[in-house]
Amino acid sequence: VTVVEHAFIHVDPERVPDFVAMFPEARAVLASSPGFQWAELHHGLERPGVLLLLVGWESLDAHLVGFRQSERFPRWRALIGPYFTADPEVEHYEPAVARTP
Amino acid sequence: VTVVEHAFIHVDPERVPDFVAMFPEARAVLASSPGFQWAELHHGLERPGVLLLLVGWESLDAHLVGFRQSERFPRWRALIGPYFTADPEVEHYEPAVARTP
Repeated sequence: VTVVEHAFIHVDPERVPDFVAMFPEARAVLASSPGFQWAELHHGLERPGVLLLLVGWESLDAHLVGFRQSERFPRWRALIGPYFTADPEVEHYEPAVARTP
Repeated sequence: VTVVEHAFIHVDPERVPDFVAMFPEARAVLASSPGFQWAELHHGLERPGVLLLLVGWESLDAHLVGFRQSERFPRWRALIGPYFTADPEVEHYEPAVARTP
């Protein structure tokens, strides 16, 4: 992984379980994109209406061009968009020290 | 992992390489705390002065009590605190869908 997409997704706290149940279907759309490496989803303890999506990409362009500018992006948004209560907040991070136990 | 600590650490962008080089020493203090599972460090592409620290803990109390209320916390802060340009922003997340390729 060279780039991690970091997205705060804002949803109705009561709909978090539905979002989590739907997520594998949306994840399959992500996972079909070239340069996709992994995805994980977390939900906020202090902010129960916030889901944290982390996606490992081979490069920044794999996300911004290969995914965002492909026909996969509207399919992804069609699945997750109906849950939004605000615009997602998306940033990118570069791993500096890898996960080590 | 049942809880992920998610911390935005704000530093001078020019000191990011020094922070990264120091981090293994600070990480060793974290890692000596009961219930610690892993740690990873990322740095922001859009916000070059932001480091993202993710720490896997066995429970919320492992972080908030076992670590924060121990003598390890001042040792950790003594190492990372000198780099701060603002207070860290700390939240906790619960894994909902595990990292899968």
